Amino acid sequence: MSQSSSSASDKTELTYASSGVDISAGEQVVSRIKSLARETFTPETLSDIGSFGALFKADFGDMKKPALVSSADGVGTKLKLAFMTDKHDTVGEDLVNHCVNDILVQGARPLFFLDYFATGALSPDVAVATISGISRGCKNHGMAFIGGETAEMPDFYSAGEYDLAGFIVGVVDQDEIIDGSAVRAGDSLIGVASSGLHTNGFSLARKAIFDRAGHTPDEHIDSLGCTIAEALMKVHTSYLKPVQRLFSDLSDGSIHGMAHITGGGIAGNLGRIIPSGLQAQIVPHTQPGSWPTLPIFDFIQECGEIAEEEMRKAFNLGIGFVLVVSPDDVDKVKTILSDSGHDSFTIGAVATAPGDIDAADAKKSRAVFL
Amino acid sequence: MSQSSSSASDKTELTYASSGVDISAGEQVVSRIKSLARETFTPETLSDIGSFGALFKADFGDMKKPALVSSADGVGTKLKLAFMTDKHDTVGEDLVNHCVNDILVQGARPLFFLDYFATGALSPDVAVATISGISRGCKNHGMAFIGGETAEMPDFYSAGEYDLAGFIVGVVDQDEIIDGSAVRAGDSLIGVASSGLHTNGFSLARKAIFDRAGHTPDEHIDSLGCTIAEALMKVHTSYLKPVQRLFSDLSDGSIHGMAHITGGGIAGNLGRIIPSGLQAQIVPHTQPGSWPTLPIFDFIQECGEIAEEEMRKAFNLGIGFVLVVSPDDVDKVKTILSDSGHDSFTIGAVATAPGDIDAADAKKSRAVFL
Repeated sequence: MSQSSSSASDKTELTYASSGVDISAGEQVVSRIKSLARETFTPETLSDIGSFGALFKADFGDMKKPALVSSADGVGTKLKLAFMTDKHDTVGEDLVNHCVNDILVQGARPLFFLDYFATGALSPDVAVATISGISRGCKNHGMAFIGGETAEMPDFYSAGEYDLAGFIVGVVDQDEIIDGSAVRAGDSLIGVASSGLHTNGFSLARKAIFDRAGHTPDEHIDSLGCTIAEALMKVHTSYLKPVQRLFSDLSDGSIHGMAHITGGGIAGNLGRIIPSGLQAQIVPHTQPGSWPTLPIFDFIQECGEIAEEEMRKAFNLGIGFVLVVSPDDVDKVKTILSDSGHDSFTIGAVATAPGDIDAADAKKSRAVFL
Repeated sequence: MSQSSSSASDKTELTYASSGVDISAGEQVVSRIKSLARETFTPETLSDIGSFGALFKADFGDMKKPALVSSADGVGTKLKLAFMTDKHDTVGEDLVNHCVNDILVQGARPLFFLDYFATGALSPDVAVATISGISRGCKNHGMAFIGGETAEMPDFYSAGEYDLAGFIVGVVDQDEIIDGSAVRAGDSLIGVASSGLHTNGFSLARKAIFDRAGHTPDEHIDSLGCTIAEALMKVHTSYLKPVQRLFSDLSDGSIHGMAHITGGGIAGNLGRIIPSGLQAQIVPHTQPGSWPTLPIFDFIQECGEIAEEEMRKAFNLGIGFVLVVSPDDVDKVKTILSDSGHDSFTIGAVATAPGDIDAADAKKSRAVFL
């Protein structure tokens, strides 16, 4: 596309294409995205891809006081794995599932999704493969993929690379918002299994595995039961379906709080929903009777000789989502999760916060590893 | 931050910071963004920055059939100007105004905004300056800046560089959606002045001015009345206030269609809202009696020896927004725009489409330069 024209003599007229922006490639991508997006349209979707703004009916059935719940996210440097392996069709699903979980924490169900795809030189095939993952992720959740932006930005991204961000809007009845204020001392912490790193810690993982230990992505590792790339690229788990089953099968108010375990690890994210005066105390996976970590985390730790404390900040360590419930509900919750195909573990409990915490550390002390 | 640790001996343990992710810098940015965001909060805003999802009351007053209107956008390579000049506090406002105009085209008023800010090595000062522009832009529109993502992605962005995307949600009554279907043969095209390039065509402009003609950003150019950087970085005009005045002062249905002039130029964007069988015919700015182009476009064209046709695809050429109205309303519209501080020009008219257009060219022929 632009390469041939930009090598032309300085005397020729400059064109938009020679500056690195190929409008026809952009139009080709938009037209191919259209059919992917249409497969996700719901009855509320009022516009097609390509209109200035995307239209969606604000009709929330019999909800009394609806609140929109929105979130923006990226895939982080997990994208580098897509570049290394030339496999682009799952990072979009990672992105969608990440966004779905973020708003699920407050009890919201997803409505619609928009993406931002930015690259140095637009390859229609790579863009469409990437966005096919978004479309699949949206379809899995009955969510409409209604718009987005595909940007060709010369000199911004290395050859063959791109960045990808997503925006989700969902809805929850204001009376049913879950924000952790119902969490009580004595509550149990139920950790739901992750599939792997999800979308966090990839800068550290890549440095440990590839730079430090000298592995390559296509190496098969016995303890992982697959190649390194396959283990690292496992799709971010969506917790929407199992949690919606909990909503329907448990009595109202049974879930006191939820946390999606992303950047900052289990304690960093769980602490965000623990009320002042309380402390979520996590029994680490290194202690018997807690949860089994995934082999990929042991592998990363060995490759990078990474201290346990650093591991806890960078990774989910096998727990992708945490539910805070009364001890009386633990068995029922675990059974429902198991019936939905999700392993879960009691990973600790909520206690009254110790009296000797500095005010400066108060927020960080809301969730700690024992 | 990471630089010192990553040069340490290979024998040391890897840390998250040595892999290029500085969690404390991230936390510092979030805490400084919080106060910027809070200044924009509206009565509908139900959550603070830092919760998993951002909560916003879905209460649209006496609107009968509300539809949400959303859009995702970036700033494109206008960001390179921010990097060249180390001036980061206006690109966020560009982004907000771009998004506001995109949903205004369908008649929507803005409700809330989220951003995505991604960089290689997080500089809290640069991030906060950038996001201060978003906050100001939101405040100007009575829109809540309720969330976003700040991502540190080592090896993705060059030193000191970042990408920035935005996501807007607004609302319009379904009975009042403007989609161009009311456009009729004989309608007038009213172009509203842009402040400059807005956020499109920067790859071509940079190539022409800096690479081809060898200028530097801080050069004062007499015809521009300012430096090159100042002319290129003029903030993207928001058309919300003047168009809302048109809504309130004109009788219902007076505005038959609107187009925001972004990538693709005047014809490329205007064509998106012209119904089948009609053609918007634009009298080019090079002809007497049409609109006066801005000096920056003449300057770019000279620097790059760019053909007029390329200029029309890459740039707005001085027209940032187009209104399609009945000829009877032209004077009134222009007076209201002028009273709101916006220059406007009759730039053409709508005609019946010529009968000899190939089916393949039909969409591209919806708007043409005469």
